[in-house]
Amino acid sequence: MKLRTRLFALLILLQINVLHAQSTTEIADKFIRTSLLENKGYNWLKELCEIGPRLSGSENSLKAIKWAQKKMIESKFDSVWLQPVMVPHWERGKIEQALISNSNKYGKEKLTITALGGSIGTGKTGITAEVVEVKSLDEVSKLGERAKGKIIFYNRPFDNGLASSMEGYGKAVDQRSSGAAEASKVGAVAVLVRSVQSSYDDFPHTGSLSYRNSEVKIPGAAISVIDADFLSKALSEDPKLKVNIKLDCKTLPDAQSYNVIGEIKGTEKPNEVIVIGGHFDSWDKGCGAHDDGAPCVQSMEVLDLFRRLNIKPKRTIRCVLFINEENGLKGGIEYGKYAASAKETHLAAIESDRGAFTPRGFYVTTDSLTFGKLQNWLPILNKAKIEWIRKGGSGADVGQIKNAKALFGYVPDDLRYMDVHHSSTDVFATVHPREMELGTAAMALLVYLLSENGL
Amino acid sequence: MKLRTRLFALLILLQINVLHAQSTTEIADKFIRTSLLENKGYNWLKELCEIGPRLSGSENSLKAIKWAQKKMIESKFDSVWLQPVMVPHWERGKIEQALISNSNKYGKEKLTITALGGSIGTGKTGITAEVVEVKSLDEVSKLGERAKGKIIFYNRPFDNGLASSMEGYGKAVDQRSSGAAEASKVGAVAVLVRSVQSSYDDFPHTGSLSYRNSEVKIPGAAISVIDADFLSKALSEDPKLKVNIKLDCKTLPDAQSYNVIGEIKGTEKPNEVIVIGGHFDSWDKGCGAHDDGAPCVQSMEVLDLFRRLNIKPKRTIRCVLFINEENGLKGGIEYGKYAASAKETHLAAIESDRGAFTPRGFYVTTDSLTFGKLQNWLPILNKAKIEWIRKGGSGADVGQIKNAKALFGYVPDDLRYMDVHHSSTDVFATVHPREMELGTAAMALLVYLLSENGL
Repeated sequence: MKLRTRLFALLILLQINVLHAQSTTEIADKFIRTSLLENKGYNWLKELCEIGPRLSGSENSLKAIKWAQKKMIESKFDSVWLQPVMVPHWERGKIEQALISNSNKYGKEKLTITALGGSIGTGKTGITAEVVEVKSLDEVSKLGERAKGKIIFYNRPFDNGLASSMEGYGKAVDQRSSGAAEASKVGAVAVLVRSVQSSYDDFPHTGSLSYRNSEVKIPGAAISVIDADFLSKALSEDPKLKVNIKLDCKTLPDAQSYNVIGEIKGTEKPNEVIVIGGHFDSWDKGCGAHDDGAPCVQSMEVLDLFRRLNIKPKRTIRCVLFINEENGLKGGIEYGKYAASAKETHLAAIESDRGAFTPRGFYVTTDSLTFGKLQNWLPILNKAKIEWIRKGGSGADVGQIKNAKALFGYVPDDLRYMDVHHSSTDVFATVHPREMELGTAAMALLVYLLSENGL
Repeated sequence: MKLRTRLFALLILLQINVLHAQSTTEIADKFIRTSLLENKGYNWLKELCEIGPRLSGSENSLKAIKWAQKKMIESKFDSVWLQPVMVPHWERGKIEQALISNSNKYGKEKLTITALGGSIGTGKTGITAEVVEVKSLDEVSKLGERAKGKIIFYNRPFDNGLASSMEGYGKAVDQRSSGAAEASKVGAVAVLVRSVQSSYDDFPHTGSLSYRNSEVKIPGAAISVIDADFLSKALSEDPKLKVNIKLDCKTLPDAQSYNVIGEIKGTEKPNEVIVIGGHFDSWDKGCGAHDDGAPCVQSMEVLDLFRRLNIKPKRTIRCVLFINEENGLKGGIEYGKYAASAKETHLAAIESDRGAFTPRGFYVTTDSLTFGKLQNWLPILNKAKIEWIRKGGSGADVGQIKNAKALFGYVPDDLRYMDVHHSSTDVFATVHPREMELGTAAMALLVYLLSENGL
């Protein structure tokens, strides 16, 4: 090439780069403006919450699945399908009650409890026993004979002294998930677990307990933090008091359910897939607005934004609403099996399962080279208040996609999350439209960058 | 020195550095744990909100000043004093009312309005006139004769399509602050201004309007966004409709008031002062919980945290609660005069006047060298969720301290701020304890770093 031709080529190249840079900025602004002004996902969430909670196997969960499928079809995604999966089917029943039953001082004081997910029931007359208060699983295993025939009351508080509510949760939740199994080992007959939450109120938070095959199953319930403090005080004054617990929850045979999947085919590399999703099941208290309704709706809206703005992704973008994360992970596992055998490549997957508060960052699991490259996207992601991309866990569901190059977890602010998580206060009114919609824009932008540039 | 002696000295030096590094981390954790667990500032805010709103010159504002002085004395600050300052004294009065007065279609429809701060009243019979809807100050100046005798209705919406609510506010607020003066120029008789807010509700937000000496003063009120849309629709169907506005607000003679000041003397450089503060006055709707009650209380708690944790700052740290930021800035100006003439050096000042939501960063005005140095503090500040220190404005009050080396503005998340700002919804219940207290810890940490290291 002559010098002039080469200079001309260079100028064209520079211009293309400038155009490309402009267009990413413009697209970022479009995602942000459209999501914030139109609130389409937020309005979808309202509809979803009106269906009610979506516990795996429940009638409501099937209604919600049909609703999501319909919305994806209406949004004109290229393909929409249901991936069948069998899920556990646990029902709370109508009775959950705890009474101090034989204390002169405390009479028949009622305690606010809620059954832990997966718990067996107590039978009609309930379980009446003395109560042993402990602060840890370790302490239980050391009780030996003293635990026999007793109700174990796990009362280690959520650590509100940590800036991260997720960390507070992580440090308290073993009592809820493993408390019954540990107590059963030493002959206890039931467990009450201080509700794992950052707020101080009378709404106990539920969540899974796990039994071990080697142990007898004993019932478990969360007790509200207010009543946990009350019971602790009562026990200090009257250590021989008994509590009667009645739960009629039960586990039914596994039920047919589905992951809801919708996608927009890539124009240049349709076989490279970017997954974005959350879990579509919720606990049966409240309506799972933050956990994980809003994040599911955000994932749906990410694809819908591409449609509304007529942005054609180079790679295939796929929204997956995983069923049964809360008490089985069957949906995630089933999709993982599919991903392992599919001919397409899973380039990346993004999970949103930390509520729908104001955006802060993304966790990512990937190799060092890719991690370094991702940092270059921060200035553009920062338009939607994404401050950082850090190494960290993505999420339980996308974690099942073993062959993806990068697994992301969307991280909104968590200071308020554990106030409502798994409880009857996790309702539509606690979701703020601007916080939720800016999160949608942040994820749309990451999906766009992935679909344009690959990894 | 012999080699051994030099090595020994080096080891000692290294050890001191390690100890110092440890101790900053430990202190950060202590600030965070203590503020989050004890909620002292949050409980103070509850008391402050129970006093009621604190508009400059009002009886309530004097009660609140005494309350703050008492709290500082109880917290055993080294010195606590009131700095006298004369402030404007505007009163809302009891009547604020707008009625569509002669429309066949819309009858006597009531519109929800609230007087803008500083507005003159309308007289007992009110002002009745036809209404001209505009979207900007420019549009008004072009109306010419058509504005004469009319009510100008400014109806440019808050731009909710921006990720920054503060930016949305900045782009809409000229209608409120200068709308009356511009309308007066072209002979209008009053203005109604679409409430400047990010939420969609029936609670109009107040705020200052400014008159110009050269123009006739005309009354101004904010109209709720719901009724702004309603009025706009009504006008499109019935352009000749009239509105009657009645306001009995008035400006009284300037009143005696005070900045509340408390300090802890520095142990090593008592003449180098670090100021932290907010404005103690509030609008008279709600109780000014976010604007600027919580930030004032955060500033008080920063010093209290040093006391509670027995941390002795090397430099003097001073909490200043400035009076009259909302409608005069007299407190800030008065303190600025003091700072200009005082023998002590104002090293830095931090203002908190953006609500008490989850921490995000600090803006700073300083020289490039200092700006670079400050970035080294980010890893430790990040423990309290401070993600960045960026060049930017500090605040109206500390901006009056002209000789400080660095002026900081604390920046919490702003997505919800403009929902409540200057309105009757700015109440205690909208402040989240963890969000507020983590902000306190973030500011305490910055004050600590400044007091230990200087600039």
